[in-house]
Amino acid sequence: MQNLLSMKDLTIEDITAILDRAEILKHYGIREMSEKYMISNLFFEPSTRTKMSFEVAERKLGLEVIPFESGFSSVLKGESLYDTLRTLEEIGMDAVVIRHPEERYYEELVGNLNLAIINGGDGSGQHPTQSLLDLFTIKEAFGGFKGLNVLIAGDIVHSRVAKSNADALKKLGANVTFLCPPQWAGEFDSVSEWEGTIETSDVVMLLRVQHERHDGETGFTKEEYHRKYGLTVEREASMKPGSIIMHPAPFNRDVEIAGSLVEGRRSRIFKQVENGVYIRSAILETILKGRELTWRKSLKMPMY
Amino acid sequence: MQNLLSMKDLTIEDITAILDRAEILKHYGIREMSEKYMISNLFFEPSTRTKMSFEVAERKLGLEVIPFESGFSSVLKGESLYDTLRTLEEIGMDAVVIRHPEERYYEELVGNLNLAIINGGDGSGQHPTQSLLDLFTIKEAFGGFKGLNVLIAGDIVHSRVAKSNADALKKLGANVTFLCPPQWAGEFDSVSEWEGTIETSDVVMLLRVQHERHDGETGFTKEEYHRKYGLTVEREASMKPGSIIMHPAPFNRDVEIAGSLVEGRRSRIFKQVENGVYIRSAILETILKGRELTWRKSLKMPMY
Amino acid sequence: MQNLLSMKDLTIEDITAILDRAEILKHYGIREMSEKYMISNLFFEPSTRTKMSFEVAERKLGLEVIPFESGFSSVLKGESLYDTLRTLEEIGMDAVVIRHPEERYYEELVGNLNLAIINGGDGSGQHPTQSLLDLFTIKEAFGGFKGLNVLIAGDIVHSRVAKSNADALKKLGANVTFLCPPQWAGEFDSVSEWEGTIETSDVVMLLRVQHERHDGETGFTKEEYHRKYGLTVEREASMKPGSIIMHPAPFNRDVEIAGSLVEGRRSRIFKQVENGVYIRSAILETILKGRELTWRKSLKMPMY
Repeated sequence: MQNLLSMKDLTIEDITAILDRAEILKHYGIREMSEKYMISNLFFEPSTRTKMSFEVAERKLGLEVIPFESGFSSVLKGESLYDTLRTLEEIGMDAVVIRHPEERYYEELVGNLNLAIINGGDGSGQHPTQSLLDLFTIKEAFGGFKGLNVLIAGDIVHSRVAKSNADALKKLGANVTFLCPPQWAGEFDSVSEWEGTIETSDVVMLLRVQHERHDGETGFTKEEYHRKYGLTVEREASMKPGSIIMHPAPFNRDVEIAGSLVEGRRSRIFKQVENGVYIRSAILETILKGRELTWRKSLKMPMY
Repeated sequence: MQNLLSMKDLTIEDITAILDRAEILKHYGIREMSEKYMISNLFFEPSTRTKMSFEVAERKLGLEVIPFESGFSSVLKGESLYDTLRTLEEIGMDAVVIRHPEERYYEELVGNLNLAIINGGDGSGQHPTQSLLDLFTIKEAFGGFKGLNVLIAGDIVHSRVAKSNADALKKLGANVTFLCPPQWAGEFDSVSEWEGTIETSDVVMLLRVQHERHDGETGFTKEEYHRKYGLTVEREASMKPGSIIMHPAPFNRDVEIAGSLVEGRRSRIFKQVENGVYIRSAILETILKGRELTWRKSLKMPMY
Repeated sequence: MQNLLSMKDLTIEDITAILDRAEILKHYGIREMSEKYMISNLFFEPSTRTKMSFEVAERKLGLEVIPFESGFSSVLKGESLYDTLRTLEEIGMDAVVIRHPEERYYEELVGNLNLAIINGGDGSGQHPTQSLLDLFTIKEAFGGFKGLNVLIAGDIVHSRVAKSNADALKKLGANVTFLCPPQWAGEFDSVSEWEGTIETSDVVMLLRVQHERHDGETGFTKEEYHRKYGLTVEREASMKPGSIIMHPAPFNRDVEIAGSLVEGRRSRIFKQVENGVYIRSAILETILKGRELTWRKSLKMPMY
């Protein structure tokens, strides 16, 4: 694995290898890598948890993290993303994590650069590290994916997470159902009623209502949304034994999910946050080591 | 000590322990702690000196400092401070330093979180690390506090420092007098004339005129303020031998204090800045070690 | 060398020493210094490459880099640059890198502070580290400077780089010609035609059109500028064998330079970026070690 751009690029073997490595890191702890790598996190959209989660993973792996300020950069002087990255490559970066508002921003980059690119979210496209941490959290709860019923509820059309997860879960043998207001389904088949679906779901995965991508116009008040499409306390009561609740966060309490359920017994929401650090460490390690090996091979250097 | 929120929570013993530890660190140097802790500085209000002072202390202690950008965070997506901090806890933070415009922002947090909170200033409330570095600087000059006359002059009602210091100094046996324009005294007794007070003061502690909290309306020109309430060159001449001048900075030259006095022989202003790093190191060390011990006790692990 | 402010302050011996040290660092790699120094990068103007280039150099040297946010600092509370720096000195900074919009901002600072100042660009004034990395790149290509014909083309009057480089190159024995629209020549003699100059130039050094310093008014469309003053594909074809193209970047493709030439065989543009890290490491090392020696001498401590 030279880059991580989209869940679509990953085979079942790739996914399994990352989940297994994350499990080992969670059990034995994250150790510093033997090489001193340089990395930078290029976030062109606001983020707390993803950026800080990467930063913690990077520090635990002993990487040197070079700050990048998107609002204070040559991008303001009209520089293209490719030119910015070529520059970072020459400055000495081994890898970059990028979050960018443009979908598939990475297509003009891959193949033309030597540094590794880890996609931290592209517009309404993919968010593969979130997807992998979700898979890790599901596997932790159920041991596997075959035959699991996963209900993904909310702002499907604007959600990077919905798309990444749908791809991967189906590949791994789970059944995925989308639940959302009909106008938010995009290209996907969906239902718009909780009744008849929630009772058989092993995983209820909620998505954030992305007010900032609806131009402020969702057509719902918060109360209306909660009543029709949110996970209410009543709906949670009809969930089957052993089933779990997930949310990529940040969440809107009492919109997508009743506030009292956020830290309830079914919730894995903060567990997902914790697992994110292990998944990101596993990915960074895999990519950086993989590139090292490729490079040594190309130089015919000994592999130790 | 599990958190540092307000000077009001500290006993004389707590204060003495911190001042003693800071003295040792100043004499022997700050060393890296044996554990690798993660910390983040959450500044929701502008600050240079406090934030950088904490950062230097943290680096000298060998902590991993994870950057947090308040203007670029999920807080913008409507997330509560509690939810942000729960996330940081799961990501792996051991402690956070918080500066926040809301007074007593920490009340909804304490007791519900496992990470340590160090208050870096809450609105017009408290600023305990500034207070402790002021105490350290006074103790360095006079050896103790009993019977010292401390005159605090300036924008009392908006000053976190005035309140924190008044609490602590009285507890430690000093006499505190406030000097300010009558409308800036708030709940406190105050005088509005330098004459009769300055001659007997051991410490003259000036406060910054906080234009940004007066909605731009102080009712004084800078010259008027300086003439009536500032420490002029003439007033300084009437100070008693051995007495000192303090200011928490940033200062307005020729408003609170004549510019030529800032680096004069009585001034401890830049000494305070220097001492801040030792005090903050002592506090971080005390809290992080204290938590470690509590945690080991709870697991019945050996204490070494 | 105690500070690096302007190319005008450097003797030929100073320049040679830095270039030689950078060559050693490039050949053998940059190592961590034996002392733990603290540094901060104070950028009051946008920059990606210069700031990140310094940051990488600093990390490779093992320095502790304390973040400074110019938009979030006490400067907003009206503090002078001197007072900010005095504070940073007391907090424990050994050196600062400063980029500031005001020309010769450093004059009020030097001599009054103990920390080292490295000028990362002052308004339309100097940019000595850029100049030194340009010299390094030229020396790498040609072995020296005597008799070289260097053509500097573009926005001369607003360019820190043009001025720094002109000073240094002439001192080192090169011939410098400026090419620009007549109204952009400022105090310098210049030509405005490529023909007759480009054929004999060893180095064609292009400058960025600084739209942000022209108040949006250059008087040219991009196409017009490119046609009259840019390095077109046709003009490049008339360059002599072995000659090179340079640009301090960020560049505007198809304005100053045809996009296809940016990564062409004559271009040293990304090589300059790479060399910047070695030059900045050499400068930081030289200044920090020099200060250490001065300080040990003043204390009559052994020099090891």
